[in-house]
Amino acid sequence: MKIAILPGDGIGPEIVDQAIKVLNALDEKFEMESAPVGGAGYEAHGHPLPEGTLKLAKEADAVLFGAVGDWKYDTLDRPLRPEQAILGLRKNLQLFANLRPAILYPELAGASTLKPEVVSGLDILIIRELTGDIYFGQPRGVRAAPDGPFQGAREGFDTMRYSEPEIRRIAHVAFQTARKRGKRLTSVDKANVLETFQFWKDIVTDVHKEYQDVALEHMYVDNAAMQLVRAPKKFDVIVTGNMFGDILSDAAAMLTGSIGMLPSASLDANNKGLYEPSHGSAPDIAGKGVANPLATILSAAMMLRYSLNRAEQADRIENAVKKVLASGLRTPDIHEEGTQRVGTTEMGDAVVRALA
Amino acid sequence: MKIAILPGDGIGPEIVDQAIKVLNALDEKFEMESAPVGGAGYEAHGHPLPEGTLKLAKEADAVLFGAVGDWKYDTLDRPLRPEQAILGLRKNLQLFANLRPAILYPELAGASTLKPEVVSGLDILIIRELTGDIYFGQPRGVRAAPDGPFQGAREGFDTMRYSEPEIRRIAHVAFQTARKRGKRLTSVDKANVLETFQFWKDIVTDVHKEYQDVALEHMYVDNAAMQLVRAPKKFDVIVTGNMFGDILSDAAAMLTGSIGMLPSASLDANNKGLYEPSHGSAPDIAGKGVANPLATILSAAMMLRYSLNRAEQADRIENAVKKVLASGLRTPDIHEEGTQRVGTTEMGDAVVRALA
Ligand SMILES: CC(C)[C@H](C(=O)O)[C@@H](O)C(=O)O
Ligand SMILES: CC(C)[C@H](C(=O)O)[C@@H](O)C(=O)O
Repeated sequence: MKIAILPGDGIGPEIVDQAIKVLNALDEKFEMESAPVGGAGYEAHGHPLPEGTLKLAKEADAVLFGAVGDWKYDTLDRPLRPEQAILGLRKNLQLFANLRPAILYPELAGASTLKPEVVSGLDILIIRELTGDIYFGQPRGVRAAPDGPFQGAREGFDTMRYSEPEIRRIAHVAFQTARKRGKRLTSVDKANVLETFQFWKDIVTDVHKEYQDVALEHMYVDNAAMQLVRAPKKFDVIVTGNMFGDILSDAAAMLTGSIGMLPSASLDANNKGLYEPSHGSAPDIAGKGVANPLATILSAAMMLRYSLNRAEQADRIENAVKKVLASGLRTPDIHEEGTQRVGTTEMGDAVVRALA
Repeated sequence: MKIAILPGDGIGPEIVDQAIKVLNALDEKFEMESAPVGGAGYEAHGHPLPEGTLKLAKEADAVLFGAVGDWKYDTLDRPLRPEQAILGLRKNLQLFANLRPAILYPELAGASTLKPEVVSGLDILIIRELTGDIYFGQPRGVRAAPDGPFQGAREGFDTMRYSEPEIRRIAHVAFQTARKRGKRLTSVDKANVLETFQFWKDIVTDVHKEYQDVALEHMYVDNAAMQLVRAPKKFDVIVTGNMFGDILSDAAAMLTGSIGMLPSASLDANNKGLYEPSHGSAPDIAGKGVANPLATILSAAMMLRYSLNRAEQADRIENAVKKVLASGLRTPDIHEEGTQRVGTTEMGDAVVRALA
């Protein structure tokens, strides 16, 4: 079992270090190899996703990813910007299924901007399709408008597309995942306006025939954004396209108030995956030793569960994190009165101790 | 001055009735003419936007719109469904600028699912472009995928497009509106992924040169969805495209917990506009006399302000609504202990009395 380690930029390296420490504290040892990605890839090899990094990610059984991005790369041409590495990895590794849990740990209920009764016990899972939609659809660019009321004017354009096999495979992942949880799936679309999502809705409805034990509900994306604010606990599993999933999964994460706690998995058809915290590279606090490493440590747990088939080890890590939270340790992002403020390394060390 | 009255479906007729009553209680009388729209249009003339209705809307100086939609029309072909009337009116009347305030009245702070300190005093305005983007972009449809990894498979597709003149005109509206408020504008895009929104960002940046007294900030749509949950009061005016605006304006409205209070305006280049409540047709409570008419009454106030040039009358109505809230009257959707529960008509009557 080989793990590709891509720490990236900003707080990426320091939080990934903690996850490595936790993995190394398990009985079984995993082979790990690091490579630069994002801004670090650009610095080292002139490209956010250097060839060697992509090769390593392809060969490995799983990828542990930190975060990418820093203001200093904002002026680069788009193909050279750090976030292109994420898009490139998703596309090249065909990581079409993005799983993003939004879980509110009881100890952290106060961190949410929502009232405790609205979010306490929150446990929803957003499944976002990750290799299709308007993210990758061709054609796209800037041109003279070929028709319409502004024919001839310069316009930017992109293509939203979803094919039947793409929708089917993500729908299967969603139904199978819902089956292992609360057996309720909400498919989010905009079928009242978009052809792509009327088609999406039709195919999801068809796949549902194979999963009659799962309750399927269709919801428009604008309504889903409202219901996430109004009554998020009514959801169990949400499945949606790449663009809507980008927006809704971030909104859902923020409901918990502790995005520093939330892991994510991006899987291919064989459960090979890339694992990364749901938060970004936070260049403003990079190198200060204050970043919360728990989302990355929990991403490593997801990796053990989904890609490395080590559910027991995953449970151990998740329980260790719960113990540490219960003991009152908090990085600054989740610190409250009456709890003990610790730094990145101390938090990692505490999880290692709690594993024992 | 002629007002086209399009009550629509569900609670539409009963809430529009209250707004008419309030308009009729003003000193100046306006000519009003009604026509069926949405499901009502379909019932009367076989089309959600009958020719006569469109003609009336075009001739009038402003349109007061209730709401459209009912489950019983869900099985109709898409072009016949009620919501097509909204899209048709926007396109035909060229209502490109949608203004949606998200305001939390101090008396209703408890209605929000967010903590009072996060939302009390909330007063943001979302300006959504309403006649472009992927809502109307051609080509669109279902076809055999012309290329890509699923070439030949059936796929749904749509086209996102924004031309320079479209972006310029909405940017001007946004900067001018921000100038009259807190002088801060957030332009929401997804320039890191979409050509359309890199183009959007470039044009908005260019228009900003004419409004150096307004502070402009660019924000990715996923981050905007997070910041609306995390710290909504940090926003003043938000401007964005049709699709992102659909999602963000509904999320912002729901932050207040009292979407029954929120009006909206959709304006053309000459400030002719369509005015409607931000909420839907609520068929579940239609005809029961419990719907909150205040969003529609406040929409009528916006109409007086923006299209009919009667700012004083608009102020009078808005103040009357504040008075009624202060007096403790509440429809069921905003009812709390210690306040007095009233129905749709009583609420309308109370606003009329408070005008005096
Ligand atoms: C960085 C960006 C391209 C990316 C996306 O839009 O998918 C990010 O927002 C995410 O959700 O992982
Ligand atoms: C009904 C629907 C077509 C419409 C939209 O998506 O614009 C609605 O959600 C709105 O925001 O007015």
